[in-house]
Amino acid sequence: MSLDTTARLLISCADGPGIVAAVSNFLFHHGANITALDQYSTDPEGGRFFMRLEFQTPHLDLSRALLYQSFQDTVAARYNMDWTVSFARDRKKMAILVSKYDHVLNELLWRWSREDIEADITMVISNHSDLKNTVENFQVPFYHIPVSALNKEDVEKEILTLLDGRADLVVLARYMQILSEDFVSRYENKIINIHHSFLPAFVGANPYLQALERGVKVIGATAHYVTKELDMGPIINQDVVHVSHRDTVGNLKEKGRNVERNVLAQAVGWHLEDRIIVTGNKTIVFS
Amino acid sequence: MSLDTTARLLISCADGPGIVAAVSNFLFHHGANITALDQYSTDPEGGRFFMRLEFQTPHLDLSRALLYQSFQDTVAARYNMDWTVSFARDRKKMAILVSKYDHVLNELLWRWSREDIEADITMVISNHSDLKNTVENFQVPFYHIPVSALNKEDVEKEILTLLDGRADLVVLARYMQILSEDFVSRYENKIINIHHSFLPAFVGANPYLQALERGVKVIGATAHYVTKELDMGPIINQDVVHVSHRDTVGNLKEKGRNVERNVLAQAVGWHLEDRIIVTGNKTIVFS
Amino acid sequence: MSLDTTARLLISCADGPGIVAAVSNFLFHHGANITALDQYSTDPEGGRFFMRLEFQTPHLDLSRALLYQSFQDTVAARYNMDWTVSFARDRKKMAILVSKYDHVLNELLWRWSREDIEADITMVISNHSDLKNTVENFQVPFYHIPVSALNKEDVEKEILTLLDGRADLVVLARYMQILSEDFVSRYENKIINIHHSFLPAFVGANPYLQALERGVKVIGATAHYVTKELDMGPIINQDVVHVSHRDTVGNLKEKGRNVERNVLAQAVGWHLEDRIIVTGNKTIVFS
Amino acid sequence: MSLDTTARLLISCADGPGIVAAVSNFLFHHGANITALDQYSTDPEGGRFFMRLEFQTPHLDLSRALLYQSFQDTVAARYNMDWTVSFARDRKKMAILVSKYDHVLNELLWRWSREDIEADITMVISNHSDLKNTVENFQVPFYHIPVSALNKEDVEKEILTLLDGRADLVVLARYMQILSEDFVSRYENKIINIHHSFLPAFVGANPYLQALERGVKVIGATAHYVTKELDMGPIINQDVVHVSHRDTVGNLKEKGRNVERNVLAQAVGWHLEDRIIVTGNKTIVFS
Repeated sequence: MSLDTTARLLISCADGPGIVAAVSNFLFHHGANITALDQYSTDPEGGRFFMRLEFQTPHLDLSRALLYQSFQDTVAARYNMDWTVSFARDRKKMAILVSKYDHVLNELLWRWSREDIEADITMVISNHSDLKNTVENFQVPFYHIPVSALNKEDVEKEILTLLDGRADLVVLARYMQILSEDFVSRYENKIINIHHSFLPAFVGANPYLQALERGVKVIGATAHYVTKELDMGPIINQDVVHVSHRDTVGNLKEKGRNVERNVLAQAVGWHLEDRIIVTGNKTIVFS
Repeated sequence: MSLDTTARLLISCADGPGIVAAVSNFLFHHGANITALDQYSTDPEGGRFFMRLEFQTPHLDLSRALLYQSFQDTVAARYNMDWTVSFARDRKKMAILVSKYDHVLNELLWRWSREDIEADITMVISNHSDLKNTVENFQVPFYHIPVSALNKEDVEKEILTLLDGRADLVVLARYMQILSEDFVSRYENKIINIHHSFLPAFVGANPYLQALERGVKVIGATAHYVTKELDMGPIINQDVVHVSHRDTVGNLKEKGRNVERNVLAQAVGWHLEDRIIVTGNKTIVFS
Repeated sequence: MSLDTTARLLISCADGPGIVAAVSNFLFHHGANITALDQYSTDPEGGRFFMRLEFQTPHLDLSRALLYQSFQDTVAARYNMDWTVSFARDRKKMAILVSKYDHVLNELLWRWSREDIEADITMVISNHSDLKNTVENFQVPFYHIPVSALNKEDVEKEILTLLDGRADLVVLARYMQILSEDFVSRYENKIINIHHSFLPAFVGANPYLQALERGVKVIGATAHYVTKELDMGPIINQDVVHVSHRDTVGNLKEKGRNVERNVLAQAVGWHLEDRIIVTGNKTIVFS
Repeated sequence: MSLDTTARLLISCADGPGIVAAVSNFLFHHGANITALDQYSTDPEGGRFFMRLEFQTPHLDLSRALLYQSFQDTVAARYNMDWTVSFARDRKKMAILVSKYDHVLNELLWRWSREDIEADITMVISNHSDLKNTVENFQVPFYHIPVSALNKEDVEKEILTLLDGRADLVVLARYMQILSEDFVSRYENKIINIHHSFLPAFVGANPYLQALERGVKVIGATAHYVTKELDMGPIINQDVVHVSHRDTVGNLKEKGRNVERNVLAQAVGWHLEDRIIVTGNKTIVFS
């Protein structure tokens, strides 16, 4: 199964009889061979239908344009589907926004350099210059765009100009600036963020110190899509690590960094392989 | 989605174009509504196709007998499928064989008593009488069939007689007798065993002592289908737990018990929900 | 190392030079042989000192009464220590309070019946009668004390009477009644509770449904000592389990039950082996 | 607690009464303040005693030379102790040997650049030149020493010359050459290796393919000290990751890489913080 000939179809719609048959008939009649299929319904009566489908294209008898048109007309319209098809050959373009912390950025760059990440990293943008060398060592363009209280709007414009046409996915790899509602709406379900998570949750400054003082026994991280409500978007991935009274704030942060980079890298991988459907404020992850 | 109306179809066959379409068309045309589908191919060219499909039967227009016949004739025969269909309403019958260790048995009985296990436990058979009360407290019939070097063949006959018609699944919950090749062949892919697993593996007696002396840092358990080669059948589930130099042989065994009961209970659940396809000496688990 | 001859000393005090020497000299001079020692300081200058020490008593030259007196006079007083000594031979008495959910209760009873729990379970008290048989099958006394809005005070009195002299530890194994401040203060750091934990946290009714709707990817459990602030006492143990969009509320609850019973059983074990020191609102666990 | 003033004492000896007292008295009388202590005995009668002790040196009244001499004469000799003392201020020198795989190397370099690794990386030696840039980007000297069937002895000599005086720890970060018995004996318990681990174990070529064909559900990694018996030295750390039938050999290797780098980095950290005592062919890890 070469990535060169792999396509992926993501569908969600109101559930009802005959959807799998309609989709698989369409693909079969046009020479596509289904190699992986995950389907899930919230409820057969009045629920919602979700499907991820991988198929092979060597014998496909339609151009891409005709495939889109024909699938829309003959299948999607009938079931009022939200759907996307993507071709693994068209590697997604991925931009990374970062501030000073390098752990998540490094994890992404490394996995990418050893071809574990199925994307082209087109740029890294930072409001600090610290990570310029790190990034350029990977032959990735680095843009330093300082942010102040006064220029936030201009900065976003500048970033949007850089991203234009060069970002199918924007990863916030510990980018410590809040994006405006307008920015977020332009990349709906295309911006992934990572943040630490605690049991119980701590509000306010220095959550690691609060976690230490509260004596928590696990700390975690959550990767999610960014919505206009800060840190409240659809959750993609979560994990935790065990800690003890012996951990200092420094240790807690180190452990937190390690869980953050793994949780985010996995979430990014799922997005790039078209394994995620967002529905309402949650995700269906066909991992 | 009521279990009363849920059916599950497991299919494996040589991969080729049109299989998903053929199956889903058949179901659609007979009023079955697919509510979950997992499909996996080892290779689109010359590989093997595996599928698990859940569907709802309220509008099914065929009797069971006709469904079997019709699916075989119109779909399965064409693709030379290995396939089974099962109806959740027909709870599987499950027999448990056990010796003296009660941890796995207890886990199964408990999960069953709180309806987390989707089966009827028809009997517990043991070569010792120790667990009679434990079992009967759950209102499950207990059969004590002592084993000696001389009566092994008779014992197996007696067990087979008890199982006849009352066991769709046989769980070896730490049953310390080796089953004959003949016995195993009668319940192919229907006997699940659990055994401890170590990194590295230890041969010979008292593996926990060997693990202690070797200073291993994890101990694990493997649940697998029983084949004629002891402990070499298709693996269903594995997990490990971390241990340290502070663990005595007693602690190691306690930790081993806890990982064994969880690994086995999960494997049994997957079997009962028809989530497992055996192919060659491995399993496809659509969990 | 027989439990019959094992004693455990837990100490906390302001840190300063010479504490380990003073304690170990005392024990050495009285014939006690230290077999395990864990020590931890928050800060050598102005911090707090915590120590757990296991020693063997066959050659101890003091009666228990003299040991207490002498250690207090010659060591503890000098460093203004909070300290306890306990003898494994004096098995702790453990009472369990439960409502209708049986998963945590069963886990404790089963581990206890296997002798994995180092205590005498003296009673199970419930505000429902459902679990009477379950408990009595283990030859443990069961007391049914119904609770209504009107008799809460009387119920607590009745429970306190039952516990009096028969409970060194009270485990709330999903006991759905809130204990009064007075009750809690009588068993300070001697009542262990378990509750589910979510990332993020959910307030209000039916947190599992909220978790489902929010699409969380892990659910967890927290075992803690009970203080007058509900669910805010010192955390002893936490763990999580991974979940997905496929999990129904029923599945989430089943997974939640499994993590709850393991987290609580481990916390109870640590308490019984004198591995926990409470300091402020957190725990030091020498596990 | 500054690392500048932290010292660590590791002791093993035959168990007997008074050892903790003797050691803690010595330290107390010379102005050392114990801030962490872990002690463990295999058996109080005829067993073996192990202790790790951290102490603060600002008020120490002995020079290092006198500390060594005095501790040996007044304490260690009496109990026939194997012991080492180290000062965190003397950062250990760490050399890395690597072939072509970069995942473990990168993990170490990155943690080191973040100051999560408490050592000076003095060099990276490789039998290939591929990773030269990667290493030099971190300002670490890189030595390329090609190996052929003919020059193995010369290569080892060359490596030993490079290491001489510049390596307190040698990490084999996927170094695919077997070190000679002579080489290993010069760095006893100072060479750490990482290798993949499977349940069950697979012998022969391409274990990942064998694991795929066997359908294993976990793959793992083991970090251990190198002894003359290949991959049989004392185990320091182990972990596993869950895999499924969907994982290709490529995915298995990716998951294997991720578990390898974490398992090794943690093992290296424990070694550098003097948390490991080797006894026979196993380790005591005071983590």
